[in-house]
Amino acid sequence: IDKEGRNPAELASKFNSKTKAIILNTPHNPIGKVFTREELQVIADLCIKHDTLCISDEVYEWLVYKGNKHIKIATLPGMWERTITIGSAGKTYSVTGWKLGWSIGPQNLIKHLQVVHQNTLYTCPTPLQEALAQALWVDYKRMDDPDCYFYSLPRELESKRDRMAQLLQEVGLRPVVPEGGYFMIVDVSTLNVDLSDVDENQPYDYKFVRWMISSKKLSAIPLSAFCGPETKRQFEKYIRFCFIKVSLNMDDIANNWVVR
Amino acid sequence: IDKEGRNPAELASKFNSKTKAIILNTPHNPIGKVFTREELQVIADLCIKHDTLCISDEVYEWLVYKGNKHIKIATLPGMWERTITIGSAGKTYSVTGWKLGWSIGPQNLIKHLQVVHQNTLYTCPTPLQEALAQALWVDYKRMDDPDCYFYSLPRELESKRDRMAQLLQEVGLRPVVPEGGYFMIVDVSTLNVDLSDVDENQPYDYKFVRWMISSKKLSAIPLSAFCGPETKRQFEKYIRFCFIKVSLNMDDIANNWVVR
Repeated sequence: IDKEGRNPAELASKFNSKTKAIILNTPHNPIGKVFTREELQVIADLCIKHDTLCISDEVYEWLVYKGNKHIKIATLPGMWERTITIGSAGKTYSVTGWKLGWSIGPQNLIKHLQVVHQNTLYTCPTPLQEALAQALWVDYKRMDDPDCYFYSLPRELESKRDRMAQLLQEVGLRPVVPEGGYFMIVDVSTLNVDLSDVDENQPYDYKFVRWMISSKKLSAIPLSAFCGPETKRQFEKYIRFCFIKVSLNMDDIANNWVVR
Repeated sequence: IDKEGRNPAELASKFNSKTKAIILNTPHNPIGKVFTREELQVIADLCIKHDTLCISDEVYEWLVYKGNKHIKIATLPGMWERTITIGSAGKTYSVTGWKLGWSIGPQNLIKHLQVVHQNTLYTCPTPLQEALAQALWVDYKRMDDPDCYFYSLPRELESKRDRMAQLLQEVGLRPVVPEGGYFMIVDVSTLNVDLSDVDENQPYDYKFVRWMISSKKLSAIPLSAFCGPETKRQFEKYIRFCFIKVSLNMDDIANNWVVR
């Protein structure tokens, strides 16, 4: 375990000759971690050694804050031919109701996704596809222009992130400040809220969120909702806030903490 | 078997105590049949007798031609509580790329669809939902007005249907003129096209469509694509044309026969 708390040996121990694929997510939801090139290289080395596919969920690729850089694992040597990179119009342009995204990869992998797509969704919503194509066309031509959405959005959100962290600290919480994405997780156990009158069978974070909605009119997602059975207990003291709609106007703050 | 070729006893023989659901489709794709009240009553009686659900695909409900009437099986006595009726914005408003539809049924059935929807699609494209809601609102208030799309579309398509039938008859084919929908099937075996140089393993309709695309620049769907293995042979002499884009302008006709 290195000084950042990473354990490459633990990851390596999960790979064997039967490992078909790894799902990577950077920037990560809900943790907010942006994987470094060094960390991605560890994953890439394992994928190449074990001939494993990499499904890389990079839907928050443009939401990366100062001091961090989004790197596509598909750009590392030997990874293009084994990686499917997933992007999202909803996350890229803050239109999460649009139901549009894309997968990028070599033809021999993408053709199988096309078969599944043809036989499940059949098409994407075509008027929204056209709008997305136009938006990408406009923004790719002005990449470092302050009007470019990829330029302006992370800067706008960085102020909201910092405001959110400050608000949480003011009530005695210690948020995990994200390197990317628009979610912030926080350990709520330090508040010592008495939840003894609530249904005992639920994880602590579920009970806490329910209490917070009813008594504080604030909503969030319990972190254990993201966990499998073996890690649920480990994360049940955390909840996930979304700060994309946090207002920088003090008067609006209470009305703008929202879920997802 | 009655004089219309229907065989209620054959349908009844398919039901037993293990029959969970029947899928009904009226107006029917690809046949173009609009089920009569009497026919629907036969199905309803079987559903009630065997306590069977009815999933009723009525996406072409507004595309019904003179002399026929669309009836929702859910309106027959005893059927509301066992029927899920499926509608489509794409088919209703001729915007098949919109990926929007709806299911109508009692709360105890719909709630299960909501669980599936929540965990698969999650949302529909919200801007298009808003547009659809507005369109339905406008048209429901002017139901018998010639400007109402539900009024004008079937009238416009009926002329196209008749033109399509005439064109097919002129080249020596006998189309099955549909009572609803915008598809027309036709037996192409009477043309006696020599397909002996084509891959033998394919059904006749697949080979015919391939020949028609390359030598006549016309496209259609082989009907056996709609069939399970036990009925493929029965329908391999038919192909399905779509007439929604058939032009009533003679000069444009050859350019406007399209698939799906």
